[in-house]
Amino acid sequence: MDEIHAMNRPLIIGIMGGAAANDSDEQDAYTLGGLIAKQGWILLNGGRDTGVMAASAKGASDQDGLTIGILPGNTHTHASQYIRIPIVTGMGNARNCINVLSSDVVVACPGGMGTLSEIALALKCSKPVILLNYEEEKRFEPFQHDGRLSYAASPQEVIDRIQAVRLLNIGC
Amino acid sequence: MDEIHAMNRPLIIGIMGGAAANDSDEQDAYTLGGLIAKQGWILLNGGRDTGVMAASAKGASDQDGLTIGILPGNTHTHASQYIRIPIVTGMGNARNCINVLSSDVVVACPGGMGTLSEIALALKCSKPVILLNYEEEKRFEPFQHDGRLSYAASPQEVIDRIQAVRLLNIGC
Amino acid sequence: MDEIHAMNRPLIIGIMGGAAANDSDEQDAYTLGGLIAKQGWILLNGGRDTGVMAASAKGASDQDGLTIGILPGNTHTHASQYIRIPIVTGMGNARNCINVLSSDVVVACPGGMGTLSEIALALKCSKPVILLNYEEEKRFEPFQHDGRLSYAASPQEVIDRIQAVRLLNIGC
Amino acid sequence: MDEIHAMNRPLIIGIMGGAAANDSDEQDAYTLGGLIAKQGWILLNGGRDTGVMAASAKGASDQDGLTIGILPGNTHTHASQYIRIPIVTGMGNARNCINVLSSDVVVACPGGMGTLSEIALALKCSKPVILLNYEEEKRFEPFQHDGRLSYAASPQEVIDRIQAVRLLNIGC
Repeated sequence: MDEIHAMNRPLIIGIMGGAAANDSDEQDAYTLGGLIAKQGWILLNGGRDTGVMAASAKGASDQDGLTIGILPGNTHTHASQYIRIPIVTGMGNARNCINVLSSDVVVACPGGMGTLSEIALALKCSKPVILLNYEEEKRFEPFQHDGRLSYAASPQEVIDRIQAVRLLNIGC
Repeated sequence: MDEIHAMNRPLIIGIMGGAAANDSDEQDAYTLGGLIAKQGWILLNGGRDTGVMAASAKGASDQDGLTIGILPGNTHTHASQYIRIPIVTGMGNARNCINVLSSDVVVACPGGMGTLSEIALALKCSKPVILLNYEEEKRFEPFQHDGRLSYAASPQEVIDRIQAVRLLNIGC
Repeated sequence: MDEIHAMNRPLIIGIMGGAAANDSDEQDAYTLGGLIAKQGWILLNGGRDTGVMAASAKGASDQDGLTIGILPGNTHTHASQYIRIPIVTGMGNARNCINVLSSDVVVACPGGMGTLSEIALALKCSKPVILLNYEEEKRFEPFQHDGRLSYAASPQEVIDRIQAVRLLNIGC
Repeated sequence: MDEIHAMNRPLIIGIMGGAAANDSDEQDAYTLGGLIAKQGWILLNGGRDTGVMAASAKGASDQDGLTIGILPGNTHTHASQYIRIPIVTGMGNARNCINVLSSDVVVACPGGMGTLSEIALALKCSKPVILLNYEEEKRFEPFQHDGRLSYAASPQEVIDRIQAVRLLNIGC
């Protein structure tokens, strides 16, 4: 874990996932946010007040965790109230690249095409990626084999994987 | 096709695909570039001198077509010589968003995670997407059903689909 | 001029300037656009249908020149009709960096804070900069002394300067 | 101050300034960073380990303040060790827009063209701007008259101005 503890900063864990999410996925995102905060890690997400973003931020905030939201618009008007640090990009979907590059580990909860773009960019940038409640997908097998991508079936398993994973070169 | 002929501009067709591509995919990209140029359309891609980017630009250039390359770096040093108009973004993978938003139709040749991110962003932005030589994928079925995404088995079929498709709302 | 004729591409001349411009500045922008087109150069600007952007694009278009507009929004709805190639960035003011990096020479007509940001970024990126109808400014003297920045009093003088300037290293 | 205390978040104060700075400007940046931290505000800057960025981050860090660095590159390798939260953009100078949009108040210390671009973008986006140790400049007079831009002669005066300013509409 040396590489990602560089300079004694806390880990930044990026949580990606749908702006529209069902109750179960929101509950998992909430739980995961709380577990991340309990580890002393920082939670980073897309910052909006909806779906996995809002739920994971609330989960971390309820455990006094630090939350960063990388917002697509020109203001923080639409940020979740549980985002402590809104980063306002004004760059729309291009902010997805920032989500990925700024995260030491990228966790994807179920989501749509925005989430898929973030998984793809994270793998392209050699970030460790953990997919929560995803079916295994053939396209991702090479990354699974080299240890960069793994699947988790519960929020606790995500935490275990972050702690256990032998992190590969980080960068892009 | 009214929406995409707005203001009497020629169509801009974005060709996505691997920076590393096999001979067959490069040949298809070359053929597709030429067919696009023969239609009087403009070819847009990621601009680099490798793989599907270089091959499709050469194909269009050999037919006197106009080629635009949206480059990730700070200079056009690494642009294909067949790119007539290098757009230098200095934004790395964030330029993938520009590739998608600037294309009236997004065509994806086989590629890796960068290409997948562009397919995902194109669908998120409601662009018409055509996948050349891809297996059908469950994840994309909803977009197939509403007509935004289709599969083609040859460069000529891509052209036919661009001409035939009832284009949906374009925008993001 | 070798550096900027690399790969036998036509020069791309970026015209910056106010979205709100007075009649005289719009007339100069129109004239300058036409002169650029007559040289066989490509005109690049911010693409919107207003002020210096619209006037310079019309000037080039009326002389059958090629025009590129780097748009801030998510669609080309607000592009000038005289922009032949709309590049849609979805990145707001961050597109100013693309304007600068994609131009072989940056020409600034009078404008506001957006134009000033582009002059500053162009100088930071070591682009040749020509200011049309600007008072000389103390802050820019070092760049004037090393030949990167010059002042012109008419559109024709801009053309003369582009042709005469010993272009410095281009890049960022 | 209501607008900028929205949602009970601490103020984010953006400190812009030269990557190359003289001793006096670095000392002021260090002092200013410390004063910001003592107010309970968050310091945001460009994150690199040099000049005003490094000095202001160290100043805040030495007072246990929270520091955010918006980095231009693809990794946080070049971040100052006093940056607690590195945001990795991979977007070069385009990150200057994020610096500005994410700051409730933009303070500029002496710097070069990058800093000038940030002042210009901040004024364009209607952010409150405070210039520390700058000569008054004619170009900025309209913004001085409407209260958006002011000059300060010491770090303490910057703090006083942040507290006193009647903040205008924030947004872009």
